[in-house]
Amino acid sequence: MDIQKIILKQAQIAKQSALKLALVPTKEKDAALKAMAAALVKNCAAIMRANALDVAAGVKAGLSAALIDRLTLNEQRVKAMADGILDIVKLRDPVGEVMDSRRRPNGLRIDKVRVPIGVVGIIYESRPNVTADCAALCLKSGNAVILKGGKEAIHSNMAIYKALKGALVATKIPAEALGFIGSVDRAAVTELLKLDQHIDLIVPRGGEGLIRFVAENSRIPVVKHYKGVCHVYVSSKADLKMAEEICFNAKVQRPGVCNAMEKMLVDEKVAKRFLLPMAARLRAAGVELRGDEAACRIVGDMKKASAKDWYEEYLDLILTVKVVNGVAQAVDHINKCGSRHSDAIVTKDKKEADVFLKGVDSACVYVNASTRFTDGYEFGLGAEVGISTDKIHVRGPMGLEGLTSYKYQVYGNGQVRQ
Amino acid sequence: MDIQKIILKQAQIAKQSALKLALVPTKEKDAALKAMAAALVKNCAAIMRANALDVAAGVKAGLSAALIDRLTLNEQRVKAMADGILDIVKLRDPVGEVMDSRRRPNGLRIDKVRVPIGVVGIIYESRPNVTADCAALCLKSGNAVILKGGKEAIHSNMAIYKALKGALVATKIPAEALGFIGSVDRAAVTELLKLDQHIDLIVPRGGEGLIRFVAENSRIPVVKHYKGVCHVYVSSKADLKMAEEICFNAKVQRPGVCNAMEKMLVDEKVAKRFLLPMAARLRAAGVELRGDEAACRIVGDMKKASAKDWYEEYLDLILTVKVVNGVAQAVDHINKCGSRHSDAIVTKDKKEADVFLKGVDSACVYVNASTRFTDGYEFGLGAEVGISTDKIHVRGPMGLEGLTSYKYQVYGNGQVRQ
Repeated sequence: MDIQKIILKQAQIAKQSALKLALVPTKEKDAALKAMAAALVKNCAAIMRANALDVAAGVKAGLSAALIDRLTLNEQRVKAMADGILDIVKLRDPVGEVMDSRRRPNGLRIDKVRVPIGVVGIIYESRPNVTADCAALCLKSGNAVILKGGKEAIHSNMAIYKALKGALVATKIPAEALGFIGSVDRAAVTELLKLDQHIDLIVPRGGEGLIRFVAENSRIPVVKHYKGVCHVYVSSKADLKMAEEICFNAKVQRPGVCNAMEKMLVDEKVAKRFLLPMAARLRAAGVELRGDEAACRIVGDMKKASAKDWYEEYLDLILTVKVVNGVAQAVDHINKCGSRHSDAIVTKDKKEADVFLKGVDSACVYVNASTRFTDGYEFGLGAEVGISTDKIHVRGPMGLEGLTSYKYQVYGNGQVRQ
Repeated sequence: MDIQKIILKQAQIAKQSALKLALVPTKEKDAALKAMAAALVKNCAAIMRANALDVAAGVKAGLSAALIDRLTLNEQRVKAMADGILDIVKLRDPVGEVMDSRRRPNGLRIDKVRVPIGVVGIIYESRPNVTADCAALCLKSGNAVILKGGKEAIHSNMAIYKALKGALVATKIPAEALGFIGSVDRAAVTELLKLDQHIDLIVPRGGEGLIRFVAENSRIPVVKHYKGVCHVYVSSKADLKMAEEICFNAKVQRPGVCNAMEKMLVDEKVAKRFLLPMAARLRAAGVELRGDEAACRIVGDMKKASAKDWYEEYLDLILTVKVVNGVAQAVDHINKCGSRHSDAIVTKDKKEADVFLKGVDSACVYVNASTRFTDGYEFGLGAEVGISTDKIHVRGPMGLEGLTSYKYQVYGNGQVRQ
């Protein structure tokens, strides 16, 4: 069988199983998730053996130390994957929730009821824990899932998948609802993206290149989780000590993630007073600073930012600094150069905060807090598939609710249209 | 300037104006909508003159009488367009609604606030009233809009657009938020669909060919309003008199619309008792019947349905009839052959109704009512852009809420991530 037929067959099976899975009660889904978690622990040795093959291949291929670290599994990390599934067991099942109920003058009752989306395709890169996380999130929300991991982690992903799928056999979740594409051929992705008759949603998780490829080649709706070019704007009305703590945290606490600050804007009225101690503290923590002309005049020995710097997500200890003349300019700059992810203002002025919160067109906008809080757990929404930078379907942290749709259930007693 | 540059420029202007329009209060938006309605009435003569050019061209091109009728405007229809805008004025503005507010243990308050999507592109075919309807719906929900109508109605659309845009100049809605593509070149659509940096959502309104073209060529998210292959299933536990009234209404009251019944399923236990009077009544109303073998055995002189018949949207006085052996088979058949639009069961058995409502994977599922109620007004949601057969972002009637997204506004007092 060629790849086209294999993928089509898988998608058809997934669609059939999705219709069954949509009817499985929460209790049964949770029991299945628990079995999946237990299976990971039970098969830990096999998973680690498979992982060793990927790590060896990665070393041979010259992957960076950071990538090798992301790829590597040990007993503790496999346990963490299992615990992640058990955390999802604890989350409220969104399926079946009556979101709205209305009685019409003609007597019809119209309930808007939350339902699973159907079949979700997850296309991801090197981290093997995505296999377990996304499988659990999709199944808990009643969706069939087709997983397609990257070639760097193919043995690890296969071993994890095998353990999870094996666990489903004795449960009420149809085992066919958990699908996995073993081929590492890119043609498999291209075929998958054509099957809008069978797959309802595609979520790419990985670098910008992967996401762009998926968005440009998919006939199926895609929820994109692009980069985070996050800003903090320090207003002239800020508590400067608070601003310093927020900026330091947003940049330094974990620089390699999408909700870390990449750009710092400061009002010209407080620029000197704020920037001198801030720059010293950031540099002491190893941060490389780049700035516009005004910032460079204030902070000595600072590299001039290039035009590209304002749009770039470094995911590293690098920060670009700009001096602006008020909240309006800050908002304009963020809307022009940002990535609609997370942006913050530090100010004591409520009116100014409101201008910023309303004006900045981003998924998460903050006043007087670090951008680092953009996260499903921190928001109280539980585990997430990612942080959507799209404005369609789901925006910001994409958890279980983001994996649902709804239907209208209409109850009549013989009503006909006049 | 070539078409590519013209379209790009328009999209950039739309994006800029969307950021401004998002901040315009409801009162000001409503005042602008009223001015738009008044401008249609005031410019009625000019609109009708432009329309006469389109109608003449349509007649010359040999368009069907039905298409010419859709295209033709008269004083009454222009007035109806203006009234449609005034109806939208009366609808509640969804923008600014706090959908959820939560306080986290660290003191952060997280508000989920409804916001406009940004820039919406509407690509539509012959009916010129779409120009006014969609302009008003998008602007009321705070979105900039780019309209691209079909070539059959180009003069009418231009005249309507000119009147609407002229009215905006003296209002708080930036006139640039209402965009229109005058070119009838298909290349204009192709260029538009590439601009995912500037346009947030595309809504195609028209035949299946147009929708498919847009879905396959767009990098921008698309909400699809595909066909309605709607079913009514008459259970063995139905009140057969009620079933007859519902089926008659669903088929005959307005056969040319997407929520009309196209397929009728009947349980074998009541097939003979139900079908004989039903068939006679439908035929007396001019309905052509086609059936599976069992139905043909019961109803004399009925054409055998072809394999294609089960998937087809006739939009005409044609009905295909199938005998099934219970609710499970009815559900399976609908999920296989339907279009996820609107489907109904007639039954007195609550448990059976529940199996149907949960099992049928359609936007609107009914018990004991006609499918013809699938409509924004009938659901109490107001005017609609269309009926979405997608499961992503919006499903079923797409009104003002379907034209919104949300953002998280987070209020802190110095919180940093541990």
